[in-house]
Amino acid sequence: MPVYTCTYVQGSLTPDVKDELAAGITTIHSDMNHVPPDYVNVVLAEMPPENVHVGGRPGTPLLINGWARRGHPQDGTTRLALALAEAASRTSGIPREHVMVVILDSPARSAVEAGRVLPDPGHEAEWLAEGRAGA
Amino acid sequence: MPVYTCTYVQGSLTPDVKDELAAGITTIHSDMNHVPPDYVNVVLAEMPPENVHVGGRPGTPLLINGWARRGHPQDGTTRLALALAEAASRTSGIPREHVMVVILDSPARSAVEAGRVLPDPGHEAEWLAEGRAGA
Amino acid sequence: MPVYTCTYVQGSLTPDVKDELAAGITTIHSDMNHVPPDYVNVVLAEMPPENVHVGGRPGTPLLINGWARRGHPQDGTTRLALALAEAASRTSGIPREHVMVVILDSPARSAVEAGRVLPDPGHEAEWLAEGRAGA
Repeated sequence: MPVYTCTYVQGSLTPDVKDELAAGITTIHSDMNHVPPDYVNVVLAEMPPENVHVGGRPGTPLLINGWARRGHPQDGTTRLALALAEAASRTSGIPREHVMVVILDSPARSAVEAGRVLPDPGHEAEWLAEGRAGA
Repeated sequence: MPVYTCTYVQGSLTPDVKDELAAGITTIHSDMNHVPPDYVNVVLAEMPPENVHVGGRPGTPLLINGWARRGHPQDGTTRLALALAEAASRTSGIPREHVMVVILDSPARSAVEAGRVLPDPGHEAEWLAEGRAGA
Repeated sequence: MPVYTCTYVQGSLTPDVKDELAAGITTIHSDMNHVPPDYVNVVLAEMPPENVHVGGRPGTPLLINGWARRGHPQDGTTRLALALAEAASRTSGIPREHVMVVILDSPARSAVEAGRVLPDPGHEAEWLAEGRAGA
């Protein structure tokens, strides 16, 4: 259900770290937002060094942009963003000063996955059961 | 007015399919949200296979992220997301289980195109007429 | 605190223009939204010509997508979008007809930078002072 995009400069993450970062984001989101891991999407968007600027100059941040269904309690979203930022810095070796996490949202009813409108937060179990019944 | 970004693994869409996908998204959005086709932007963001993860492992989804002006009725946005997902799966040959569509929004007054602040939904005709008068 | 992504066709901006565009966005956002320049992130996402469509056909727009903390007054966000669009067109030489700016938002409490939850608009000074005290 969620989609995370991690943007960073080419070469600042090794292949192993990329895999570990994607796996870590998946586990954290799955645990905290009650979504099976198979529904967590993570995209790693690598950029040439001259295409990432911080403060108007080339920089090497790790920018993590996530989308989740609207309606999760705000406290949980704050904890999710903190946990993602901490894990991303630890996994990548990029200092936490250069790691940014932003969670965007829109209504579950504005999103479709596997041909079906997504459920509001709290109604994941019914949605998943309907999917299995329909498969 | 809208911007759609389609993210997928390199090689999973042929050039013809890419064109057809962009054209299909354009037609559907134009018809359903009352925007002339020339104002629909579609970006195809191709990623190396190792940079797209689903469930913590490399995967081959088609992730479609759209932005539209806030204020369209929710039922219409839900129908739009369903129509886009159905057309994207049919055009791409990617099974609907692996196609995800998310529509984000923000106020029309937070967006500028052709040098002018965008109109709220329902006021497209006046905005377009003003543009022709000013050109 | 903000993240801007500029999407355009490869070759439509020279290296000098890319630097100038990133610097201009940084200065404008910093001045108008009361954020030190070092906290403004700008990503330049270059796409092959066949991967950017306008009106269902290949096109050469400059699409600028920004994220900012929710709670800035709407009038200020509108002025920000207008100023960014004007500067982007002037700097890039891309006609304003083909420049689009969209500002998205989510709660400051849904975002983490430098290991800390971002402050609501209007509380930047305390947040920055706390960071210096904690460093």
